[in-house]
Amino acid sequence: MEQIKILLNESDIPRQWYNLAADLPTPLLPPLGPDGKPVSPDMLAPVFPMNLIEQEVSQQRWIDIPEEILNILYRWRPAPLRRARYLEKYLDTPARIYYKDESTSPPGSHKPNTAVAQAWYNKQFGIKKLTTETGAGQWGSALAFACQIIGLECKVFMVRISFDQKPFRKMMMQTWGANCVASPSPETNAGRKILKDMPNTPGSLGIAISEAIEQAVTDPKGQTRYSLGSVLNHVLLHQTIIGLEAKKQLKMINEKPDIVIGCAGGGSNFAGLSFPFVADKINGDDIKIVPVEPTACPTMTRAPFVYDFGDTACTTPLLAMHSLGHSFVPPPIHAGGLRYHGMAPLVCQAIVEGLLEPRAYHQLKSYEAAITWARTEGFIPAPETSQAIAAVIDEAQKAKQERKEKVILFCYSGHGLMDLTGYDAYLSGKLTDYELPQEEMNKYLKELKNYPKAEARKTGKW
Amino acid sequence: MEQIKILLNESDIPRQWYNLAADLPTPLLPPLGPDGKPVSPDMLAPVFPMNLIEQEVSQQRWIDIPEEILNILYRWRPAPLRRARYLEKYLDTPARIYYKDESTSPPGSHKPNTAVAQAWYNKQFGIKKLTTETGAGQWGSALAFACQIIGLECKVFMVRISFDQKPFRKMMMQTWGANCVASPSPETNAGRKILKDMPNTPGSLGIAISEAIEQAVTDPKGQTRYSLGSVLNHVLLHQTIIGLEAKKQLKMINEKPDIVIGCAGGGSNFAGLSFPFVADKINGDDIKIVPVEPTACPTMTRAPFVYDFGDTACTTPLLAMHSLGHSFVPPPIHAGGLRYHGMAPLVCQAIVEGLLEPRAYHQLKSYEAAITWARTEGFIPAPETSQAIAAVIDEAQKAKQERKEKVILFCYSGHGLMDLTGYDAYLSGKLTDYELPQEEMNKYLKELKNYPKAEARKTGKW
Repeated sequence: MEQIKILLNESDIPRQWYNLAADLPTPLLPPLGPDGKPVSPDMLAPVFPMNLIEQEVSQQRWIDIPEEILNILYRWRPAPLRRARYLEKYLDTPARIYYKDESTSPPGSHKPNTAVAQAWYNKQFGIKKLTTETGAGQWGSALAFACQIIGLECKVFMVRISFDQKPFRKMMMQTWGANCVASPSPETNAGRKILKDMPNTPGSLGIAISEAIEQAVTDPKGQTRYSLGSVLNHVLLHQTIIGLEAKKQLKMINEKPDIVIGCAGGGSNFAGLSFPFVADKINGDDIKIVPVEPTACPTMTRAPFVYDFGDTACTTPLLAMHSLGHSFVPPPIHAGGLRYHGMAPLVCQAIVEGLLEPRAYHQLKSYEAAITWARTEGFIPAPETSQAIAAVIDEAQKAKQERKEKVILFCYSGHGLMDLTGYDAYLSGKLTDYELPQEEMNKYLKELKNYPKAEARKTGKW
Repeated sequence: MEQIKILLNESDIPRQWYNLAADLPTPLLPPLGPDGKPVSPDMLAPVFPMNLIEQEVSQQRWIDIPEEILNILYRWRPAPLRRARYLEKYLDTPARIYYKDESTSPPGSHKPNTAVAQAWYNKQFGIKKLTTETGAGQWGSALAFACQIIGLECKVFMVRISFDQKPFRKMMMQTWGANCVASPSPETNAGRKILKDMPNTPGSLGIAISEAIEQAVTDPKGQTRYSLGSVLNHVLLHQTIIGLEAKKQLKMINEKPDIVIGCAGGGSNFAGLSFPFVADKINGDDIKIVPVEPTACPTMTRAPFVYDFGDTACTTPLLAMHSLGHSFVPPPIHAGGLRYHGMAPLVCQAIVEGLLEPRAYHQLKSYEAAITWARTEGFIPAPETSQAIAAVIDEAQKAKQERKEKVILFCYSGHGLMDLTGYDAYLSGKLTDYELPQEEMNKYLKELKNYPKAEARKTGKW
């Protein structure tokens, strides 16, 4: 009998989140307001509750997880760490491949780790309703679930192409009592303006964010706030439970990863798994840490490190990040969760520092990896997760060539049961590869040239 | 911290299946051939491999699970036993509710427990291809998964109404490399005949079974066999790993069930969980064991115990079971897996003996239970599973009225992520209740009046 699942007892769940901001060799560049000056916590108060804003700007290394949040997470946490023995055998690799299985949550992804925390902090702050945006629907369904369990109203603006292609996510949100509309919608000024200019737009996360923020800040009673599923520091913080659990589980079997891999759209599942290991790398461990993105939306691998808005309508503060420009609307690739124009500032700062080695994969290669996974391990991965699997397979094959017993750890961020139309399109030969042309990229980036420069300091240590 | 998950190590997985036939107070009535005489194992040889036929007729109490089968099941087994603490709190019941979570398998239901075993035994016997039928698609996707992992071709005849309503199950099967067609199909004599007589039929499991058997027995090379996902003795046998694991897990926390509940279409998940507890009941334990079915297809609660064919085209032997008549085509309720005209002979014999207390629920009550579950426990159950949840809620409320600390155990047979159209229909008020009218039932039953009588002996002990 060969062990497949490394399980942690509920009593061994991590009781603190890890904040990479405390350990980054160079401090994060601050978000800037319209005047080009750093925004103060107060300026964010119409958008987020103050307890989350405190986490957003915190420099504290460890932050306690409230017991009430853990009591909700126990529905599926601690999540299993699994060994991909069947894929290892198929690849005939000396590498040992472990994956943290975040697909076991009710909505089927890592997203509820922060959705539950955010809903809980908002509820504590007296908020009655949350608004948000969603791409493929993983985030929207996670927030719908969390709001239902905690007792908040939930309104979701869903990127139109996913709303149309993936009606089942919308039904999930409704099952959990949320109100889900296609974005751009006629319900907000931002939505109406875009519908007028581009009535057939497939929508984008940037547009949907603008709509959700607008609806939160215009609540006359002031009891609505906005919730974001990725990018921000407090979101990444809540996700670190993934990596902290994985660390405990690997310790149980005396393993340490040589390579840590995750797909990155806004960066949250990648950061959640990897940041506790980035800390080890800062402390001298020899670990290769790889965020993976699609070639259709090459934020980390090709976009410059700049100050840019988080949304299309330029509502948010300017964030220092790798960005394709806030007007960028990616082509309708099926990995809907990996289509954001920017990337989490914490992830970007770690890239600037040389702590991470980003990589991009084509859609067809990802689906090929997904099919290999489904036909060996058995489980059907989300299209986003498949990007990580493509990198895992490459690393496992490299280990075979080098005859090295590498330990690979990756984040299985979600299952693909709600995304089978993508598999259908791939298997019937209807998908094609796409690489963002440089001239198109330059067009979007031109808008940013008058913004403040994001000049991050590099220590040159990695 | 209150424990939610009771987890079993891989090394503690049960290593034998339990065969209720060895302990039933009265022996099963034998299947009969066209001549009215019991069929011999040889007569089943064109349909099933001999190693499975041996299990079908076995009277041995414990049958070893081959190590190679366990090595496949470890992908998701042992399955978690969970306590529904959040539902308990919501109902404010003194009952303790445990559920065996069979939704964690790759296809999302209990079905692969037998699919893997059947595929493995067929492969051992030199078979190259399996054919089968599927209703909601849970069985077809499970067999597709198993055949892919074990290396067999797989052909699935899917009941047309589900094929049309649930294209995602078909995509799952294709992801695992199977060939899935709508039934009735033009590929078989049975299918062509029915399409000619009833071109707009929604199909039925009975019709699809006829097609799958026909395609198996007419393979000129003799390398194709048929695989059934429920009803037969060997199928129920393979599912007993559910109840055997649950028993070990309950023992870990010093609990014994007062009530055991499962939904029953053909009977396999119900039997899988309950038979090890039926054995305890035979040995004197005081346990209430409840199979649950829809009022739209009331096999156990209203149909007579008779000899009837397992399929519409009268291809199978006559089986002694509760049957609505092999021509019965139920209305298109959403619990596609609970629409079979018959019921597993082992389950029926246990009913005749008085060991089980069958119960029927309306569709609307089931969906109400499903929504309550999704909004408390968080996970979205399959429509079939919701029938069991409706009974669980009733029993928990009864325990509250009686102020008794009852222990309720049920089988969470699958998740509902592929069945969200049913939730959508329910939430938008499009679903109605349905009770099979007696005169319609009598019409189907009339056909059976010249068949041999099924006269089971009752010991009158329960």
